[in-house]
Amino acid sequence: MADRAAVEELVRLQGERVRALKQQKASAEQIEEEVAKLLKLKAQLGPDEGKLKFVLKTPKGTRDYSPRQMAVREKVFAVIINCFKRHGAEVIDTPVFELKETLTGKYGEDSKLIYDLKDQGGELLSLRYDLTVPFARYLAMNKLTNIKRYHIAKDFDIAGQFDPMIPDAECLKIMCEILSSLQLGDFLIKVNDRRILDGLFAICGVPDSKFRTICSSVDKLDKVSWEEVKNEMVGEKGLAPEVADRIGEYVLQHGGVSLVEQLLQDPKLSQNKQALEGLGDLKLLFEYLTLFGIANKISFDLSLARGLDYYTGVIYEAVLLQTPARAGEEPLGVGSVAAGGRYDGLVGMFDPKGRKVPCVGLSIGVERIFSIVEQRLEALEEKVRTTETQVLVASAQKKLLEERLKLVSELWDAGIKAELLYKKNPKLLNQLQYCEEAGIPLVAIIGEQELKDGVIKLRSVANREEVDVRREDLVEEIKKRTSQPHCIC
Amino acid sequence: MADRAAVEELVRLQGERVRALKQQKASAEQIEEEVAKLLKLKAQLGPDEGKLKFVLKTPKGTRDYSPRQMAVREKVFAVIINCFKRHGAEVIDTPVFELKETLTGKYGEDSKLIYDLKDQGGELLSLRYDLTVPFARYLAMNKLTNIKRYHIAKDFDIAGQFDPMIPDAECLKIMCEILSSLQLGDFLIKVNDRRILDGLFAICGVPDSKFRTICSSVDKLDKVSWEEVKNEMVGEKGLAPEVADRIGEYVLQHGGVSLVEQLLQDPKLSQNKQALEGLGDLKLLFEYLTLFGIANKISFDLSLARGLDYYTGVIYEAVLLQTPARAGEEPLGVGSVAAGGRYDGLVGMFDPKGRKVPCVGLSIGVERIFSIVEQRLEALEEKVRTTETQVLVASAQKKLLEERLKLVSELWDAGIKAELLYKKNPKLLNQLQYCEEAGIPLVAIIGEQELKDGVIKLRSVANREEVDVRREDLVEEIKKRTSQPHCIC
Repeated sequence: MADRAAVEELVRLQGERVRALKQQKASAEQIEEEVAKLLKLKAQLGPDEGKLKFVLKTPKGTRDYSPRQMAVREKVFAVIINCFKRHGAEVIDTPVFELKETLTGKYGEDSKLIYDLKDQGGELLSLRYDLTVPFARYLAMNKLTNIKRYHIAKDFDIAGQFDPMIPDAECLKIMCEILSSLQLGDFLIKVNDRRILDGLFAICGVPDSKFRTICSSVDKLDKVSWEEVKNEMVGEKGLAPEVADRIGEYVLQHGGVSLVEQLLQDPKLSQNKQALEGLGDLKLLFEYLTLFGIANKISFDLSLARGLDYYTGVIYEAVLLQTPARAGEEPLGVGSVAAGGRYDGLVGMFDPKGRKVPCVGLSIGVERIFSIVEQRLEALEEKVRTTETQVLVASAQKKLLEERLKLVSELWDAGIKAELLYKKNPKLLNQLQYCEEAGIPLVAIIGEQELKDGVIKLRSVANREEVDVRREDLVEEIKKRTSQPHCIC
Repeated sequence: MADRAAVEELVRLQGERVRALKQQKASAEQIEEEVAKLLKLKAQLGPDEGKLKFVLKTPKGTRDYSPRQMAVREKVFAVIINCFKRHGAEVIDTPVFELKETLTGKYGEDSKLIYDLKDQGGELLSLRYDLTVPFARYLAMNKLTNIKRYHIAKDFDIAGQFDPMIPDAECLKIMCEILSSLQLGDFLIKVNDRRILDGLFAICGVPDSKFRTICSSVDKLDKVSWEEVKNEMVGEKGLAPEVADRIGEYVLQHGGVSLVEQLLQDPKLSQNKQALEGLGDLKLLFEYLTLFGIANKISFDLSLARGLDYYTGVIYEAVLLQTPARAGEEPLGVGSVAAGGRYDGLVGMFDPKGRKVPCVGLSIGVERIFSIVEQRLEALEEKVRTTETQVLVASAQKKLLEERLKLVSELWDAGIKAELLYKKNPKLLNQLQYCEEAGIPLVAIIGEQELKDGVIKLRSVANREEVDVRREDLVEEIKKRTSQPHCIC
């Protein structure tokens, strides 16, 4: 672009020359001559040069949200935040990027998905990959040992040393409340425990060093067949076939608390300390889930492993069993819409003295949920209002812009959501059409006669009824007629 | 860290060996011997190795938000969003990073402040620097010619071809409404027009090529003296001293609409087409601002220039005249808390055919506003609640965890914001203290006798009054007693 910059500079200088000549009242020919040179130079630039090869798009893996999509997102966020607040959570926020080393060694095989920033201030930075690691960094940095918080309307965590399984049970309760109130259709929450997996890997003869990688193979069982998973374990990850088969006997099982009881009797598994702890906790967890009235939504699934490295105990993942789309339509198959678990070691990784803070939390798959709700709204052809405007300030005749500005200003100052068309003399029909399109329920129409009488004509867009309202009563009348909530929660 | 990884692998293998020996019921000595080796290896790692040199911090120029700070932020955002909705704005959102070329050549001297990402997916990406350029990219990409939108509770813009100054006046009205309702103290909005600046640069004899850079020198007049600005113009930017002096005669002036009138009579300035347009529009703008009842808040200030390149017309900047801190306290001197202007060329820079979409907007300096409000709250020693919990479910005796879990679950399902301590047998005193600290107004106390009688003891934390409420009436009673708003707007 250096050449281009040079040409641009020439264009500027030539522009000055032309301007100077004009100011000096130079001869027409002379001016024309210089103008011609100027146009030649500009032609070299070409109006669209540079634009032609510029691709207008958002970065890979990102998207914009239109007003309609944001309206959906606001509703979804409102449900989630409302639930988090119902459970007494505080809210924190952390920067969108972190020191690279803060994120290093926390995500296992997901690490390659992290975006790094170019070195500028002498710090190596990366975009945050989830909200759990920044939260753990926040706890260690502020020496917090005890907090219940949420983080941008999708992450909820309980940190602190408590009696076993009570916070864990609340996390599952929260997932149920959110998924139910979002009316996404029937759902199931798979539950497992990393200690049970590690225990059964041990008794099946998996070397410690392979636990995490075998874990991520097992985690694929919700997408691919056992044969494929076994091939990966044996072929890629060098596990003995008989070891893989032993794993298979366990991880293909799922059920309720009865399966927990059964495995507690399992001669081999019950001999493994870790597995025993995990099974004991799951048994207690199911008691609490029954008291919360959600045990029927929970399935103990030994194939659930979760990708991330930092989990240390109970893990869970919510899946939709069907979509709320109309009968006959294709199911969406969106997989997991919420997940989480216990990570008792993560905060200790940040603490200089390695002090641990036990944590359990959950994350809502908001992006997936948005697209489900969007698709459903489209399926139902539901109209979504993207503004909350209560009244349009309109005029019946010309020359009333000043009056419209005065009235709309009065309404804004009284807390009424009001608009006017940015035209000096808009046609009444256009103003009414705008209300139809934007779903604005009321029109406040100013006319010369009404001004004389000190009244405003208030028109209901739905039934086209018009009544004269005394100007001093207008605000109250509008408030009375528009009882729709003024907040998103 | 490669060595460390190797040692870690050795530790794993040695761990396996020890485990194997134990399973094989090997001799005690033999096991001890291998355990000793294991411990030696582990010692090599050192529990805190790597952590010692790891600095626990957020990236330069970023910060975390604590629950208390978030509570303040939520209140501020609520005021701003409420105002944007009152003016009929839709909301959009765009990714936190953009293609690098999307941001290139839009910010002038600010460009060096942009964060670039490391090349990963073959795309050169940068973190967004403001919300205006992504908005213009969004308009061009979606071929939108007409929208009124806000963007994460701080940016408001009106795009479209309208009658002059009506949207511009609304932007200034919005700034006044927000700054008034945030009660930040007295404020003033400086207004100017890029066309007036360019015009006076032209008549003072500044070469076109120097307009933008002289512009940013002028913009420093709110911080440094005219002498320093002149030195920069002459010394660094090579302007003739007499040219600088001519500029000085103009840019040191400020006033109301009368100054606009006066300059319209200025023999030189009134001969410049651009300046004349700018002054004409400002005259009209002041008429509308008077109708909006905010003309007294506006000052036409010829020294206001704004840093960013993309402004083409009216520009404005709000400054606090004093802080709301107590008498005797130091003023905060936070400078501009809101700013904006007209940028009619930016969308065209993205459109392949260069089609223009006129835009005018404003941006609220939320970070500065947060710190002002925070400081004020601390000055007033105001207690900020960081949760909205209405009731704590407590028990008077031991062995009532199950009952507490059942009751809190009932309350959650009824939409009540409720908590319980995550302890099997918490002391009543501790439960009451928790309410005092967290500002929870009510306690629902379960006791054996109450269970028999089918009632719950409802205690008001403030006045310590206790009444027995029949369990089926509890939800209604709690709702009646806690009338605080359940939403942040």
